[in-house]
Amino acid sequence: MKDIRSKLSDISKRRGIYWPAYDIYGGVGGFYDYGPIGALMKKNLIDLWIREFVVKDGLHLIDAPAIGPEMVYRASGHLEKFTDYMVRCEKCGHAFRADELIKDFVDVPESLSPEEIERVIKNEGIVCPDCGGALGHVEEFHLMFSTRIGMDKVGFLRPETAQGIFVNFPTLYRINREKLPLGVAQVGRAYRNEISPRQGMLRQREFNMAEIELFIDPEMKFNEELIDDTVLPLHTADEKDLRISALEAWKSGIAHGYVIYYMTKILHFLNKIGINTENVRFRQHHKEELAHYSSDTWDCEIYISRGWIEVIGISYRGSYDLERHMRYSGMDMRAFRKFSEEKTIKIRKIRPKMEILGPMFKVNAMKIAEALESMEPIDEESIDVLIGDKKFKVPSEAYDVVEEESKVSGEKFIPHVVEPSFGLDRIIYAILEHSYYERPESGYKVLKVKPIIAAIKAGIFPLMAKDNMDVKAKEIMRDLRYEGFNVYYDDSGSIGRRYARADEIGVPYCITVDYQTMEDDTITLRERDSTKQIRVAVKDLPEVLEKLIRNPELFEKIA
Amino acid sequence: MKDIRSKLSDISKRRGIYWPAYDIYGGVGGFYDYGPIGALMKKNLIDLWIREFVVKDGLHLIDAPAIGPEMVYRASGHLEKFTDYMVRCEKCGHAFRADELIKDFVDVPESLSPEEIERVIKNEGIVCPDCGGALGHVEEFHLMFSTRIGMDKVGFLRPETAQGIFVNFPTLYRINREKLPLGVAQVGRAYRNEISPRQGMLRQREFNMAEIELFIDPEMKFNEELIDDTVLPLHTADEKDLRISALEAWKSGIAHGYVIYYMTKILHFLNKIGINTENVRFRQHHKEELAHYSSDTWDCEIYISRGWIEVIGISYRGSYDLERHMRYSGMDMRAFRKFSEEKTIKIRKIRPKMEILGPMFKVNAMKIAEALESMEPIDEESIDVLIGDKKFKVPSEAYDVVEEESKVSGEKFIPHVVEPSFGLDRIIYAILEHSYYERPESGYKVLKVKPIIAAIKAGIFPLMAKDNMDVKAKEIMRDLRYEGFNVYYDDSGSIGRRYARADEIGVPYCITVDYQTMEDDTITLRERDSTKQIRVAVKDLPEVLEKLIRNPELFEKIA
Repeated sequence: MKDIRSKLSDISKRRGIYWPAYDIYGGVGGFYDYGPIGALMKKNLIDLWIREFVVKDGLHLIDAPAIGPEMVYRASGHLEKFTDYMVRCEKCGHAFRADELIKDFVDVPESLSPEEIERVIKNEGIVCPDCGGALGHVEEFHLMFSTRIGMDKVGFLRPETAQGIFVNFPTLYRINREKLPLGVAQVGRAYRNEISPRQGMLRQREFNMAEIELFIDPEMKFNEELIDDTVLPLHTADEKDLRISALEAWKSGIAHGYVIYYMTKILHFLNKIGINTENVRFRQHHKEELAHYSSDTWDCEIYISRGWIEVIGISYRGSYDLERHMRYSGMDMRAFRKFSEEKTIKIRKIRPKMEILGPMFKVNAMKIAEALESMEPIDEESIDVLIGDKKFKVPSEAYDVVEEESKVSGEKFIPHVVEPSFGLDRIIYAILEHSYYERPESGYKVLKVKPIIAAIKAGIFPLMAKDNMDVKAKEIMRDLRYEGFNVYYDDSGSIGRRYARADEIGVPYCITVDYQTMEDDTITLRERDSTKQIRVAVKDLPEVLEKLIRNPELFEKIA
Repeated sequence: MKDIRSKLSDISKRRGIYWPAYDIYGGVGGFYDYGPIGALMKKNLIDLWIREFVVKDGLHLIDAPAIGPEMVYRASGHLEKFTDYMVRCEKCGHAFRADELIKDFVDVPESLSPEEIERVIKNEGIVCPDCGGALGHVEEFHLMFSTRIGMDKVGFLRPETAQGIFVNFPTLYRINREKLPLGVAQVGRAYRNEISPRQGMLRQREFNMAEIELFIDPEMKFNEELIDDTVLPLHTADEKDLRISALEAWKSGIAHGYVIYYMTKILHFLNKIGINTENVRFRQHHKEELAHYSSDTWDCEIYISRGWIEVIGISYRGSYDLERHMRYSGMDMRAFRKFSEEKTIKIRKIRPKMEILGPMFKVNAMKIAEALESMEPIDEESIDVLIGDKKFKVPSEAYDVVEEESKVSGEKFIPHVVEPSFGLDRIIYAILEHSYYERPESGYKVLKVKPIIAAIKAGIFPLMAKDNMDVKAKEIMRDLRYEGFNVYYDDSGSIGRRYARADEIGVPYCITVDYQTMEDDTITLRERDSTKQIRVAVKDLPEVLEKLIRNPELFEKIA
């Protein structure tokens, strides 16, 4: 199994799919470049993702900065909780993730305290994987990259794109005409300063994500018609493997309806981009594994040479994020739910006395008054009001508690969030592993990347670079490029070698200009996996290619 | 003119084109979010850019990390030279770019030393623009965001995407089969920690770029056929305005052939995306303005409400970057130029004596030997060898200087670079200003964004939300989304109001489902700018829309 990794890494570096970044300077762990093939595969993957997940479902795509001010990540909880345990070798000084070192000895390393991890290391005699030296103390290490904005503001590089959506909820809710569900998507880079990234493309410090935050009313009944009888491969928190239909899964209450909706959608999507869905499962997190913001998470895992790897996480984030941002910003992050009919209710309310609050809190008085009005009265001598990071103690003489009868047509509430979060680099890596094969007869390497994902849609070869066939082939290249197809010209070596070179980087179609072309203006179109060829008129090429890219099965019908 | 800015800023915030980021936390200067309309406009702009500049010309698109290690930016010269002059108000503490403050008093503020700027501030009585306080000393301020990689490596956020291409030159040159010209493109974010960003979207700390590094052989003759008689609006360094054809410009030697090639291409591109090219010019930099890496730069400027703004720069970077990286990395960053016929030449070469170098430099001996072999012999007692950051003094007894006669088929050289660098956010802002108008009869606001750039391709309106017209309209919406069109449904208010809402965010086409639809399955398709309507069969909609998006002029022919 290691074999396929080294073969892919060889092709990738040699042919330009991806390679370790900054290698002329010895490289920097956890950073990769996408080469000409990989960068376009990623673009094609993102384009299809936007089409399937954003456009089809009428979601909103936004684009927020990667750098954020400290307050955002204080509110999100990342500042406090986004850490790993780190241990250094006392001999060579190399650093390691402590939980990774003990994972063969403990079932759920995430549940242990640093002292417990240290004990396991000691008891099991675990030493430095690099030099065999003794390991030191286990320490907490913060995973956000920090920087400075302007002269003196602390900033962080986002560890997920999600927060750029949450902080904009009020605006997005208004743009969506105050309706839920409201789905907002974002595609972009995120950053985690991994202690010691050692799994190639799978654990990067700078990586590509595509995330959706679906804001829902937790009291709204899930619309059953959104799911069907697609069979879901589930692996539950109690380690059971289930294969049940989406509808059954929903009825059994195993996960939220929208979590199941996204499982279904993801399964179809993975199939479309060339993942063998026989090797896909949704694994539920153990309670100890859950991120600080999540109450239920299902990882979509793909089986590759390294075993099961997480490529997508679907988290039920509840009201956690909006609640935190509401508290830290003092802004109203709630949505409005209309009652089926108007209600008359008695409510106890705080009525601030500005004549006391004003002199008492000066510039903060207005904000405090607003906060008080939205709080529940309590029978104490004072009440604590949080504005941003600061806490103010407001004595009870600064406000009245009144009981009012009022007609209300609805109520405000904090929406819940279902979040499917895609790790694009891992998906691309899984596509490569699931696409790789060697032709039985020749041993030639092939990437059977789906045409919609393939970076290059066709190679164009003159049978020989003479008798005007080269001129004709270049003309076809130029015309196809003009129509938006990414194609290339190759006249070097035998046609067989040119096919082999194209196969290795997943080019789905090869066009050969031969003597017949010069007579009847047709070319041969060869399909990569079947190696079958058909003749196509040059003038029909754009249309035929377009159709084949959208629907590769057509080839068999034409052939 | 300020008027259009505040109107656009209002539409942008209200309808979701862009807005200041993190506003629930009071905002952070220089950071913007793209909302649902802006994010898709940006995506459409990038897609078209890739199609026109990458696919059509057969360039390579790559995707490198934004974080880079210190060595890269030491080599690139940014660590040393990427600074602005900063001055703080002694009263309110606000910081300003010193050169911005004096630009009304000095022609080329970039050419002044900090002392000279300070003198201008004093002599002209310039005070703090915010509070009128006295200004302090002028200091240098570094514009790169810095961070830490892992525990202790210094890293920077790229100030341009270009370096991610340069450091990969050897790999990319090999992938391009060692042929020049080699064009490599990259689209992504870049970062500049501006001292005091105050120009909205136009001066951001995190911004979107699209860059091309075209590697060329400086001795190769430029292929005249690449340019035509497109008239270029030039503004030369000596402040002359010229309108001459690309061919004339090239023949006059005013700029490098490829600089002129890109001017032509850019002009056509700007026209395609909805910029009024009457308000475009290429302004040559004064010598004092040139970035540290450039020997000639032409800014493509667009005239908007703030005057001429730079949106694209075309720089002749020469061999600067590759030469620097070659020196700092010790790697060979050269290309090979074949002679038209083999030459016999005598060359003086350094032949290292390993028996002396070995004991003398131990682990560095091999690298030093390699470096020596590629250096020109000098008649000194010792020779300095630079390996990475370290300098080694090699005494002359550690090598021989020999004269060899050898047959050579070609020679190595450092390619030169022509770089067109696009500021995507500024282009989007310019599109918005050039698209904005108010209907003379009603005063309604319209963005006449080109259909290819528009975020939403069509709005779908039932005449009334009854008699099944709403159901039909939603069905059309679903079908169009399934085909990849970003469309929305709206049944609120009169059709007129719905048109107005669509116009304001640049939706080019509106589809209305009326009673006739229910009879003959046709809808009305209304074009935004002419407000003309045609009837189209529902089944033809995807094809008609597709054609109109590619070629909006067709509407007049059908209508």
